[in-house]
Amino acid sequence: MTQDDRDQRHRQRMERKKTVIDEQIRKATDERGLLLVLTGNGKGKSSSAFGMVARALGHGLKVGVCQFLKSRRDTGEEAYFNRDPGVDWHVLGDGFTWDTQDRSQDIATAERGWAVAEAMLSDSGCQLVVLDELTYLLSYRYLDSGKVLEAIRRRPPMQHVVVTGRGASDALIELADTVTEMRDVKHAFRAGVKAQPGVDL
Amino acid sequence: MTQDDRDQRHRQRMERKKTVIDEQIRKATDERGLLLVLTGNGKGKSSSAFGMVARALGHGLKVGVCQFLKSRRDTGEEAYFNRDPGVDWHVLGDGFTWDTQDRSQDIATAERGWAVAEAMLSDSGCQLVVLDELTYLLSYRYLDSGKVLEAIRRRPPMQHVVVTGRGASDALIELADTVTEMRDVKHAFRAGVKAQPGVDL
Repeated sequence: MTQDDRDQRHRQRMERKKTVIDEQIRKATDERGLLLVLTGNGKGKSSSAFGMVARALGHGLKVGVCQFLKSRRDTGEEAYFNRDPGVDWHVLGDGFTWDTQDRSQDIATAERGWAVAEAMLSDSGCQLVVLDELTYLLSYRYLDSGKVLEAIRRRPPMQHVVVTGRGASDALIELADTVTEMRDVKHAFRAGVKAQPGVDL
Repeated sequence: MTQDDRDQRHRQRMERKKTVIDEQIRKATDERGLLLVLTGNGKGKSSSAFGMVARALGHGLKVGVCQFLKSRRDTGEEAYFNRDPGVDWHVLGDGFTWDTQDRSQDIATAERGWAVAEAMLSDSGCQLVVLDELTYLLSYRYLDSGKVLEAIRRRPPMQHVVVTGRGASDALIELADTVTEMRDVKHAFRAGVKAQPGVDL
């Protein structure tokens, strides 16, 4: 096959692809607040949510972030976004539940955190709400799943919500518009590399 | 089972979990530049890379970003990060290859873009390099895969590199430290929702 043949075949293949994709784009006209769920065991769930925070801020939107598990205040994401007046950032955890080892305390912490999230979910001035690591509070039954899903369902119609964490429930996935399962193919941590600033925190 | 029983069982379970996790953390002592590959068809690859950009900037690191396919200059991520003096941001694409439909032009564009990436990959002052949508340039053979992998392999030892895009090659996955496959469980686009600022761009 000559270079010209290759170029022409490429052009024809790409023309067909363009037709299909243009048609998909033509049909996708709906604009509304989305519920995105980022789950699975792989790296990238919270960082993807924070990438959307940057996108939203770049468009001048207001953003609310609830970090439900983390208690540390030295993460790069908080240092970076918390100085932006467009962000309302809340670190709401007591550490991971295997650190506290105290179920009653964890439930009280979860309830306090959820009150902050509920306020965001009823504020139409807040255009993106990130509920980071919320799934753990549901799978450990620290929060009532029905109550949480109802608050998400009743939020302002143009508000986007991103929920992260392993083990998203079927009910949460059912309610969501976009769901990605981050599959852990390989992780440096298992090869003995510690969590590193800029990558993991 | 009484509340006290439940609390105690929880505590015992969490103690065992803490022992396992503390041991994993104790063993993970290595610090070095990582190669992260975010692939698969699901949403979240580029946004996860941009979340790591925010983390890195929050720790005062210098960051380089190459967007290999995008030609648009109106994304939220660029608007947000480009004003930060810690970021060297390059939009290097001509649009998607099915828009240009011109293989020779795409190859020339890819080579020009790769020269920018190569400069970052040999600059030890740049602590995080994002090669956004690089995989397409490899799978369409616009760039020589051997050359690309060699430049990544020879980078400064403490530099992190994030590669995003569908269809990462076996060779790239083999070289990587951390690989996540973003599995597309559900996508609002297929339900007729258009790409939205703050979520998709």
